[in-house]
Amino acid sequence: MIQHEFFDQNCFDKINEECGLFGIFKSDEDQSISVVTETYAALFGLQHRGQESAGITVNKNGEFKSVKDLGSVIEVLTPKTLSTLPEGKIAVGHVRYSPRGTVDRAGTQPLVMRYSKGLLAIAHNGAITNLMEIRSDLELGGAIFQSFSNAELIAYVIATERLKYATIEEAVSKTMDRLKGAYSIVLSTPNMLIGMRDPNGFRPLCIGKLGNSYMLSSESCVFESLGAEFIRDVEPGEIVFIDDNGLNSIRDHCGKKTSLCLFEYIYIARPDSVIDGMSVHMARRNAGRMLAEEYPVEADLVCGVPDSGIDAAQGYAEASGIPYGVALIKNKYVGRTFNRQNAENKDRLLKIKLNALAANVKDKRIIIIDDSIVRGSTCYHIVKMLREAGAKEVHMRISSPPFLHPCYFGTDIRSKDELIATKMTVEEIKNYIGADSLGYLSLENARKIASGVNIGFCDGCFSGVYPAPIPENEIDDRFSRKIMR
Amino acid sequence: MIQHEFFDQNCFDKINEECGLFGIFKSDEDQSISVVTETYAALFGLQHRGQESAGITVNKNGEFKSVKDLGSVIEVLTPKTLSTLPEGKIAVGHVRYSPRGTVDRAGTQPLVMRYSKGLLAIAHNGAITNLMEIRSDLELGGAIFQSFSNAELIAYVIATERLKYATIEEAVSKTMDRLKGAYSIVLSTPNMLIGMRDPNGFRPLCIGKLGNSYMLSSESCVFESLGAEFIRDVEPGEIVFIDDNGLNSIRDHCGKKTSLCLFEYIYIARPDSVIDGMSVHMARRNAGRMLAEEYPVEADLVCGVPDSGIDAAQGYAEASGIPYGVALIKNKYVGRTFNRQNAENKDRLLKIKLNALAANVKDKRIIIIDDSIVRGSTCYHIVKMLREAGAKEVHMRISSPPFLHPCYFGTDIRSKDELIATKMTVEEIKNYIGADSLGYLSLENARKIASGVNIGFCDGCFSGVYPAPIPENEIDDRFSRKIMR
Amino acid sequence: MIQHEFFDQNCFDKINEECGLFGIFKSDEDQSISVVTETYAALFGLQHRGQESAGITVNKNGEFKSVKDLGSVIEVLTPKTLSTLPEGKIAVGHVRYSPRGTVDRAGTQPLVMRYSKGLLAIAHNGAITNLMEIRSDLELGGAIFQSFSNAELIAYVIATERLKYATIEEAVSKTMDRLKGAYSIVLSTPNMLIGMRDPNGFRPLCIGKLGNSYMLSSESCVFESLGAEFIRDVEPGEIVFIDDNGLNSIRDHCGKKTSLCLFEYIYIARPDSVIDGMSVHMARRNAGRMLAEEYPVEADLVCGVPDSGIDAAQGYAEASGIPYGVALIKNKYVGRTFNRQNAENKDRLLKIKLNALAANVKDKRIIIIDDSIVRGSTCYHIVKMLREAGAKEVHMRISSPPFLHPCYFGTDIRSKDELIATKMTVEEIKNYIGADSLGYLSLENARKIASGVNIGFCDGCFSGVYPAPIPENEIDDRFSRKIMR
Amino acid sequence: MIQHEFFDQNCFDKINEECGLFGIFKSDEDQSISVVTETYAALFGLQHRGQESAGITVNKNGEFKSVKDLGSVIEVLTPKTLSTLPEGKIAVGHVRYSPRGTVDRAGTQPLVMRYSKGLLAIAHNGAITNLMEIRSDLELGGAIFQSFSNAELIAYVIATERLKYATIEEAVSKTMDRLKGAYSIVLSTPNMLIGMRDPNGFRPLCIGKLGNSYMLSSESCVFESLGAEFIRDVEPGEIVFIDDNGLNSIRDHCGKKTSLCLFEYIYIARPDSVIDGMSVHMARRNAGRMLAEEYPVEADLVCGVPDSGIDAAQGYAEASGIPYGVALIKNKYVGRTFNRQNAENKDRLLKIKLNALAANVKDKRIIIIDDSIVRGSTCYHIVKMLREAGAKEVHMRISSPPFLHPCYFGTDIRSKDELIATKMTVEEIKNYIGADSLGYLSLENARKIASGVNIGFCDGCFSGVYPAPIPENEIDDRFSRKIMR
Repeated sequence: MIQHEFFDQNCFDKINEECGLFGIFKSDEDQSISVVTETYAALFGLQHRGQESAGITVNKNGEFKSVKDLGSVIEVLTPKTLSTLPEGKIAVGHVRYSPRGTVDRAGTQPLVMRYSKGLLAIAHNGAITNLMEIRSDLELGGAIFQSFSNAELIAYVIATERLKYATIEEAVSKTMDRLKGAYSIVLSTPNMLIGMRDPNGFRPLCIGKLGNSYMLSSESCVFESLGAEFIRDVEPGEIVFIDDNGLNSIRDHCGKKTSLCLFEYIYIARPDSVIDGMSVHMARRNAGRMLAEEYPVEADLVCGVPDSGIDAAQGYAEASGIPYGVALIKNKYVGRTFNRQNAENKDRLLKIKLNALAANVKDKRIIIIDDSIVRGSTCYHIVKMLREAGAKEVHMRISSPPFLHPCYFGTDIRSKDELIATKMTVEEIKNYIGADSLGYLSLENARKIASGVNIGFCDGCFSGVYPAPIPENEIDDRFSRKIMR
Repeated sequence: MIQHEFFDQNCFDKINEECGLFGIFKSDEDQSISVVTETYAALFGLQHRGQESAGITVNKNGEFKSVKDLGSVIEVLTPKTLSTLPEGKIAVGHVRYSPRGTVDRAGTQPLVMRYSKGLLAIAHNGAITNLMEIRSDLELGGAIFQSFSNAELIAYVIATERLKYATIEEAVSKTMDRLKGAYSIVLSTPNMLIGMRDPNGFRPLCIGKLGNSYMLSSESCVFESLGAEFIRDVEPGEIVFIDDNGLNSIRDHCGKKTSLCLFEYIYIARPDSVIDGMSVHMARRNAGRMLAEEYPVEADLVCGVPDSGIDAAQGYAEASGIPYGVALIKNKYVGRTFNRQNAENKDRLLKIKLNALAANVKDKRIIIIDDSIVRGSTCYHIVKMLREAGAKEVHMRISSPPFLHPCYFGTDIRSKDELIATKMTVEEIKNYIGADSLGYLSLENARKIASGVNIGFCDGCFSGVYPAPIPENEIDDRFSRKIMR
Repeated sequence: MIQHEFFDQNCFDKINEECGLFGIFKSDEDQSISVVTETYAALFGLQHRGQESAGITVNKNGEFKSVKDLGSVIEVLTPKTLSTLPEGKIAVGHVRYSPRGTVDRAGTQPLVMRYSKGLLAIAHNGAITNLMEIRSDLELGGAIFQSFSNAELIAYVIATERLKYATIEEAVSKTMDRLKGAYSIVLSTPNMLIGMRDPNGFRPLCIGKLGNSYMLSSESCVFESLGAEFIRDVEPGEIVFIDDNGLNSIRDHCGKKTSLCLFEYIYIARPDSVIDGMSVHMARRNAGRMLAEEYPVEADLVCGVPDSGIDAAQGYAEASGIPYGVALIKNKYVGRTFNRQNAENKDRLLKIKLNALAANVKDKRIIIIDDSIVRGSTCYHIVKMLREAGAKEVHMRISSPPFLHPCYFGTDIRSKDELIATKMTVEEIKNYIGADSLGYLSLENARKIASGVNIGFCDGCFSGVYPAPIPENEIDDRFSRKIMR
Repeated sequence: MIQHEFFDQNCFDKINEECGLFGIFKSDEDQSISVVTETYAALFGLQHRGQESAGITVNKNGEFKSVKDLGSVIEVLTPKTLSTLPEGKIAVGHVRYSPRGTVDRAGTQPLVMRYSKGLLAIAHNGAITNLMEIRSDLELGGAIFQSFSNAELIAYVIATERLKYATIEEAVSKTMDRLKGAYSIVLSTPNMLIGMRDPNGFRPLCIGKLGNSYMLSSESCVFESLGAEFIRDVEPGEIVFIDDNGLNSIRDHCGKKTSLCLFEYIYIARPDSVIDGMSVHMARRNAGRMLAEEYPVEADLVCGVPDSGIDAAQGYAEASGIPYGVALIKNKYVGRTFNRQNAENKDRLLKIKLNALAANVKDKRIIIIDDSIVRGSTCYHIVKMLREAGAKEVHMRISSPPFLHPCYFGTDIRSKDELIATKMTVEEIKNYIGADSLGYLSLENARKIASGVNIGFCDGCFSGVYPAPIPENEIDDRFSRKIMR
């Protein structure tokens, strides 16, 4: 289908993006590996991080060829389009989530660009907080921008740093000096695969190995699908260089107090991933267990809202001794296309997505667990659905603290106006959604969901305290009014 | 995309089809109801019964208009195609599962046909076992057939009976005399919605009500999505006629010993449906409970293969006292398109579909439950996956008896050659899949999964004993060799 | 793209269809010939006879497989869909023109059907005038109809006749007894290719030969594209049977006074076809020459409206001695898709389709020739366009007589209300379109455009005198009001 | 359909592109004009200049929104995609021809970019001959390139010049100092529409007016379709600035000896366009007339190869007194899609595209005229086709001199290896194609085809003498080997 592209206000004011990254460097000893096939399979496993665009760039002998477009992995990376990619030694893959329905083809990644020293393919996850300052500087030097993507900016910074320094290693390291904010990056030079993770470690990035070939991935879950071994996380501030000499690191920017996005554990990542030493599934079960301690209630059944509340519900059941069971059945055919086709009638949509299982719910006291509340309307309908199915009591539990503040580091936490917790007390929310009781996991406990693992968190969306400077001039940009919605 | 159609051997020798049916007759008092919207939502909820074709026929003042095609509900019934349907008083909907990748556009339903008394729209689920005999008779009277579908045959029978009898009621009742085998049918005459269920009651069909408007559906789960009330099942052998006078029945063919397909409870139906008085979810949990009694084993965790083994696993956990947990994570983006695009590499496919959750599995003794085993290859890979994730022991439990015999009544139980249980003992299967132990639910217990509800079952696929005659000349048909694969 | 089908009033009241037919029987000696490739190429060359649907059925050892759908040859018969067809011994192809934008998938051809004696694939061009009577008879015998197509009716008649007679030859011959009206038919039995042309010979059908393989085609023009030899026309009333014994004929229905549709020469057929012994291009040039004699005028340039008026303009120029030249440039990218996308603004459309060539037209007296006038709006705009480009005088000449009567024999001559000539005198039309003079070819001369060739014509649309009975009960059909627009 | 993009050797070594440009600035007094609709209609009329990509950018209050993609006007600019464009005051449109099947989405135009002073949309036709030098300079200043398009380079030059000069007028004028080669450019700033044509005037660009609104177009033919008035050509070296103050010019670069591409008259432009004062149709007829004088022969009929030889054939007929007629019928459904689907079999393709009209050709001596010969294979088949249709003699005439040299200024004259005239004498070519005689228009006469109009021509492809420097380092570019075919 032919798509259109445009310069879009959203695209501009939204410097946040959740994305999934993958890269592979094929060892000469692993001739049976196809970098295209592995990257496709990996992106398929990272789709929960983005279904708005997908792309693969293959580097064959320093020549680059890409397939990328708006659409999900399955829409963009078809057998037909994949067949146009040559088999090469390096591949970089990207999936992107563009919040608020923005459509921006120019921002599809990997971004391939040519500069004074040759070609570069770049894939990025995060949000550069000093994007405006850097862009202004570059424009005053004559730069032109064809999109508002972070990736284009990063490419420019690398290109300009590379003019000053003798090696790509130095140039990338200096790039890290200039970029502020959240960024995990996978890039291919003509003969090297490079991974970098910002010094705060906001976004995950990890290393795997298949035979003698190294891989970089946003999440470890994909390694099992590939039959690969999970080696370790890229450290916050680390830059890894993978080429025929193996894997080497620059750790000049490591050692700061780190701040992984807490929401990666609570919602974003796949439960079968392990991030910075902690199983995501276990972190969610921990959240459920702590929630059972914070907000106990007598009940007959503990249930999760599919799919995001299931893990925490099992933790709650374990800690409380109340049986775990199924209260809501999700229609498994509801996907991206269905949502898009039926976007205008959200209530009807929810009824088609979720059914209460009357056989389990009738005459019972139900504890129902979800990962978060944004506007409250979904919770309202779930409570209503359970009551209509005969539930005697409905107790809502949320496995994270209330959202109160915006995110500047790569997630799509909506404006305050859309966040019910900024406008109501917990008691008011309880009444609004019609539950018999409501409990949010405390921030104190949320910080403990990865207990036993020594990492710091960014919990700015809950606390309003950010581990790094936030953009100053986001609103003042003089072009913002010139760009069309 | 442009599709092609053809006369296909599969299409011919496969007289079996799993399908989903829906019909609605709008009362004049319910002007706010849209028969198109309700039918679309219902079909969306019946998709587990068929994703190969979908269709809706609307009857507006005796005029019929259809949207139907090969493809899933979401591919065929788009906002654009739905907008071509007028709002009417009666609608009939259909989804179909065509096993083995057959592509047969001529068989999409509802089938609209014109005969001596006017128009008729027909949707069918099941398998007519005397199709060959009836078709030969009709051909000798000059009939021509444009497909091999049961629906075309049924339409012909109604048309010929209608020539002999004064009313459509009589003609439909006489049609029931002639048809043998399994059939649930929803049809629209110019001013009436008719439902019929074969005297054995092989396939489900039930009645719902929204305001004063009646509905017919293969499964009750859709009524909740529509905000409708579940009234009752259509009785085996009953014919219901819905028009402006309300709902009336002919029960001349009722009262036989009935034989609902046992596999509807075990696998086909949605867990939130209630069939012939029994919750499908509960039937599955019962199967799990009985399995725990038949094949107990010491273990640390009971898990289900998503999605079909989840309910039984919860039953097993309850009965055994062993904790229920998650061992396998299903990639939720694996759908029809993905399977189609990657059909050639089934092992790789499975690895992308399912990941073991090492955090839960490592060093544990796992009981893993699935609903059935066909070829055994999926089980083999699941056991392997769990062992690689660190499971100490893997005990496989199956919530149904071994498949040993073909089905002639509307499910796609494959040929004997494809059924591992026809070629190996349980012990041999256990060794083949690499499990530490293996237990199938006994046939005796399988017959009790709907305990407390007074219905008979067809368990021919397990027992080889069929409740009705099976086709004699299925193989001898002289045309079978003339039709192209 | 997913299409929808429906029972449509147009589809019903429109028993007229212009179509293109092709069939090939491959001799065992011609192994290098591909019946699929030849049929594709032939249909591509017959597209002027229909772009609304296209289809090919291949018969391989008596097994039939089809690709067919709504859409033009290029949309339906893609490399991908063609690749699903096996190479066989017989193929039948069809393109269809459905007037008035009707969309009716059930009517796509070839129609493949199964009856008591096996399979049959049928492709048809024309209009059966006693369709209603035959259908009523068949319905009273229990027949059901799934479309309103002539082809389905013909298939039924053959099936019922075949029950009565021992051979397909007899059955087809008896079918010719029952069918009234216009029909050229190509059909494949399991081992034979059959062609038949109604006794009036309303529609063309001819025979070609490539190597030892026979072909049937609506028009001879395709034979050159295939490198084949044009053998002869199928005679009006002739039935040709092609099998391994070569070509044989039944001529029992031959010898009547024939009546080829005059409009085939004037407009429908391709100029490089020869029909019943006359070159279509020459017939058009003859029309132009006679027009020059009937309506001479002093002028500087004779021009044709592209593409349909070009040939006659050259004839006019030759006979008059006035130079031939180009006055109107047609945008060659205007095709089916463009027309469909821009259907709502016909004036704008025409301006984009045609430009006046000012360099040729300025200060000149122009004679502009078109093949016919339907509503007059196109002529109006062409005259205006030429005047705006500086023409001093514009003389319109039409190479056929005025349309005054409906066609019942397979062309889409619109209702009287749409025909300007039924409402205005020639003088009034001249004033309406703004020409300085207007002349239509006289009926007397129109009948002479194939001078030297001994054939009769149907000129009912001009004269109101039809060579065969017209349908009596077309309007009275009791179902017509039950079928939805 | 999802497309892919890549860095392609062709894309790189081919710095030539034929394109069509359009721009409109809507006066506040012309509220009934839609810039989107006019631009769409204009691009539809410019499609002969490019069917590989199409795009429109609308500027509404300084905000830019685009629809553009690979594909023809009708594929890219659908009612659906056009509906996403707002109505604005300025629009820029572009169609592109990418020779040799290159697929390069990044090069679709208009290119919208943001630089230090705001937004710019740019559309370009031609070939910048010092592209490599400028790009190297820019890269050494830190620039990155995302494609190899001329447009991206031009955008960079404007952006860097704009840093140095106070006004966009000065910056654009200085840009003209830096760019060498062929370029017609239409661009939109936030409040101005700008057109520029290189000082040699290689490519056409002209000015039209609809109401009070100005337009820029590659060719004048579109103005008639829009109902607009053709004002004048943009002069070689002129820059026109259109805003609320009307149209103003900078003519600092005017006055050089100009050199319009001779091939625009012979082949590229539409016959109903007027370029630099000369009707394209007339220029072609002049070529035909001079050819008749240079290469007279006794014959019965003069014919043109459709569509490109038709005009010259009419000129030849006029000058020679031999009747003009049709010898070859072109299948009008052969278009871009057909060619793409059947690319592998060129002979077969040609046979389907063109049929000889035996009725006109048989036993005649034919003069057949085409605009040029590239490889000779088409001519060979045409001669053969005419002989098979019965032509007694076939005399080939070519309305341009032999191609002997590459083009560096924006047309796709292929490499010498593909040009038959670089390898054979005219006599040898005559024998190769099998004609009875062959004559090319002499260069001397070719230069006179626009007699009466005072313009200079570039005839480098015929003479090897170029009116401007050609690229020096085209082959030596060090990146050329790093970029993948």
